[in-house]
Amino acid sequence: MSTERLRKQLDFIKEIDKLKTITRRSYLADGSRKENDAEHSWHLAIMVLLLSELDTVDILKTLKMVLIHDLVEIDVGDTYFYDEAGNVGKFEREQLAAKRLFSLLPEDQGREFYDLWQEFEERKTREACFAAVLDRMQPLLLNYWSKGKSWQENDVSASTVIAKNALFDNGPEEIREYVSEMIHTAIEKGYFKK
Amino acid sequence: MSTERLRKQLDFIKEIDKLKTITRRSYLADGSRKENDAEHSWHLAIMVLLLSELDTVDILKTLKMVLIHDLVEIDVGDTYFYDEAGNVGKFEREQLAAKRLFSLLPEDQGREFYDLWQEFEERKTREACFAAVLDRMQPLLLNYWSKGKSWQENDVSASTVIAKNALFDNGPEEIREYVSEMIHTAIEKGYFKK
Repeated sequence: MSTERLRKQLDFIKEIDKLKTITRRSYLADGSRKENDAEHSWHLAIMVLLLSELDTVDILKTLKMVLIHDLVEIDVGDTYFYDEAGNVGKFEREQLAAKRLFSLLPEDQGREFYDLWQEFEERKTREACFAAVLDRMQPLLLNYWSKGKSWQENDVSASTVIAKNALFDNGPEEIREYVSEMIHTAIEKGYFKK
Repeated sequence: MSTERLRKQLDFIKEIDKLKTITRRSYLADGSRKENDAEHSWHLAIMVLLLSELDTVDILKTLKMVLIHDLVEIDVGDTYFYDEAGNVGKFEREQLAAKRLFSLLPEDQGREFYDLWQEFEERKTREACFAAVLDRMQPLLLNYWSKGKSWQENDVSASTVIAKNALFDNGPEEIREYVSEMIHTAIEKGYFKK
């Protein structure tokens, strides 16, 4: 193990500290402030540990995906899921970011991270589909727990949330049912703007 | 899979959202604000992915440990590593917290998390030693990158840092050497109070 290799790894570890400054639209469960991408990624990782029993996935691979999936936002920022215009050209911008960031690493590790990130984006493997389901579920949970604060701030309607969350069709049935019930309870409780 | 099981898992996932509000003494690398336990745990997880090649550890087990190791601080708060008085009785307080928190989960998952947390605390296995080395290294890196901001605020001297970091003796030689050089560069650069 050369010192040069360790230096590259630690340069990367320093660079990704910036993920802690990328603010998302979702509030913490207590509504006190918005969460950031590093906190979100950690939360997803715990969800993988607990909920992967609902699917047939390689846990380690899924964990790696959720831990690194948002790193590209260090360069391009967080794009709100319900922002149609903001999502145009997003993949291309993120690809440039992935190339820059992961090239800081020793070549083998950089390639592994790039491939994992791309696999996550392509949603073709079980791991990518399951990680994407949790990545959608976590902000829904936060929005529900914080009584729809972010939905209201961003004028997101219940019908938009329902329409945009067809993604859950690729995930475990238990999660699909849970999320569907949660959205309907949120409507009843008045968490969406009328 | 019963709905009751999923409900318990999601109650736990909600409860641990509080980890994002547990502030640590270390500043982010850019010195802009202090980091919290959720961000710290995420950062450690990436360090495990990149640096576990320096040791002989089960990566998934080590990842689990670093992802959950600070959850007990939801109940007891963060105890500063260099606060001798604050560390008295810490393990007993944290044990109560671990019992409360992990009992929110389905029994098998609660037991697994409790055992992993205890294994981390006991520092007897390779995984626990390696996780502990990274847990010590990460705030040292942040303190170095933020030019000793937290060391200065808390009147931590270079000799205290050196004395308290004998823990690195249980870790990979490359990390021990890197940390030792970094502390000496920090002294040269005047990052510690005189």
